[in-house]
Amino acid sequence: MGFIDKITTCSRKADSLVCVGLDTDPHKIPEHLGCSSEGVLHFNEMIINATSDFVCAYKPNAAFYEAMGSSGIDLLEKTCSAIRASHDDIPVILDVKRGDIGNSAARYATAAYDIFGADAVTVNPYMGFDAVRPFLREDKAVFVLCITSNPSAEDFQFLQMSVENKNNTRKDCALYEHVARAAVSWSKEGEIGLVMGATRPEVMQKIRDIVGDMPVLVPGVGVQGGDLESVIARCGGSYGRTIINSSRGILYASQGHDFAEAARASLVELRNEINRYRRAID
Amino acid sequence: MGFIDKITTCSRKADSLVCVGLDTDPHKIPEHLGCSSEGVLHFNEMIINATSDFVCAYKPNAAFYEAMGSSGIDLLEKTCSAIRASHDDIPVILDVKRGDIGNSAARYATAAYDIFGADAVTVNPYMGFDAVRPFLREDKAVFVLCITSNPSAEDFQFLQMSVENKNNTRKDCALYEHVARAAVSWSKEGEIGLVMGATRPEVMQKIRDIVGDMPVLVPGVGVQGGDLESVIARCGGSYGRTIINSSRGILYASQGHDFAEAARASLVELRNEINRYRRAID
Repeated sequence: MGFIDKITTCSRKADSLVCVGLDTDPHKIPEHLGCSSEGVLHFNEMIINATSDFVCAYKPNAAFYEAMGSSGIDLLEKTCSAIRASHDDIPVILDVKRGDIGNSAARYATAAYDIFGADAVTVNPYMGFDAVRPFLREDKAVFVLCITSNPSAEDFQFLQMSVENKNNTRKDCALYEHVARAAVSWSKEGEIGLVMGATRPEVMQKIRDIVGDMPVLVPGVGVQGGDLESVIARCGGSYGRTIINSSRGILYASQGHDFAEAARASLVELRNEINRYRRAID
Repeated sequence: MGFIDKITTCSRKADSLVCVGLDTDPHKIPEHLGCSSEGVLHFNEMIINATSDFVCAYKPNAAFYEAMGSSGIDLLEKTCSAIRASHDDIPVILDVKRGDIGNSAARYATAAYDIFGADAVTVNPYMGFDAVRPFLREDKAVFVLCITSNPSAEDFQFLQMSVENKNNTRKDCALYEHVARAAVSWSKEGEIGLVMGATRPEVMQKIRDIVGDMPVLVPGVGVQGGDLESVIARCGGSYGRTIINSSRGILYASQGHDFAEAARASLVELRNEINRYRRAID
């Protein structure tokens, strides 16, 4: 089964567009767990157990594990195993934002898929399709960064570029639109999605119009200020096509012994809010 | 001492612009070493011992280590330690091509600098300065990807963009030029260099004109077909300002028990060839 089928099935079963971001920070988990890699693993396992029936995917963020050295890499492996061991067949989107070519990209793909068992990765498009192709496999998908939710996304992503149309006329469009069009063309060779930060809804609409029903992964709701109602209105609310990531708001919902139940409650609340907006656009 | 001082000193002492890329592939090292992480560490240590007096820097490529899981991360730590333990104060440029923001970028910086002890990293500019800033520290440097040596670099890097000048007129320039100009402006906040693939010398000249004496790291000579003489003619030959990376041509110079001596000979040959071109432009 391909990634898109897998996440669509999972999203439908849970009636949820929410992906839980496992950006686990050893210094933010409840104190009684300690901040060793064992403490973090226990935290991740408890979070996964408490949330797995209401998510469409998990998205571990490699940065948080790499900062712990080799024990963090073990921890990431075990976290991905814990997701596979949970009762549903839940896809893992490994957030690595890699961007390299040839041999190096192939090695990063080995790490993501063969070491960690991820179903999809995030990839940076700056080096072009050569940086994406090595991550395409029959049952895997690549989420290409398109627009990001940070202020300096405007440094390059929003610059106007002059590009040649099929009929040899030239047209101005922003770099992010060009990336979205490239992603559509790359999707002939494998499953491609886009990362679209939630902080610019009017731009999300434009991109959705370009990419049709391509899966879009939307970080930046909650702490980073993205507005959920606009996101759903602009990106749509189809299972497996709009994937809304939330990390901190769910992971750190409580600092007490009830952290897992609190995470579950926070997830359910977010899922239900999203589902209300989905019904409003039906 | 800042990174630029450190690499300039090292480059001058060795009279060498060559950076050895430690893209060590367990399946390409001499058979008698095996392909375990111990075998690779032994290989790296022998290469470092045999080459350290003729390099300006080493550049381990994280992809090759990550593909080995947590034992690869240990190996990368030990390889970086072996460089620090060699007789000279040789800078380590960790080739990670990361591109993330905020907390995530800060975590990647922790991994690169505090776990591996690197002196500099490579970073992808797609997300703008937010993706670069967390890697700036007093004694560290960031090499920003500008042009890369792969064919699909043209997908985005070479697109013409319309940008506003200081006097409010608009001007077309390629995305890579815009990145180079941004790098110059970012260098007010810390030490910045650029990555410039060696396969497009005419473009290298243009970028050198924009960035002045900013350090440029040049991969892509040798196997990828970059022409050394043009590179030196276009980028200049100053210590610490032009850094020419070679990996495979040095690492795999021999498959026999003499691999370290062969690597040294191959390095010295490359260094001397570069030095001849440097003298030609003096």
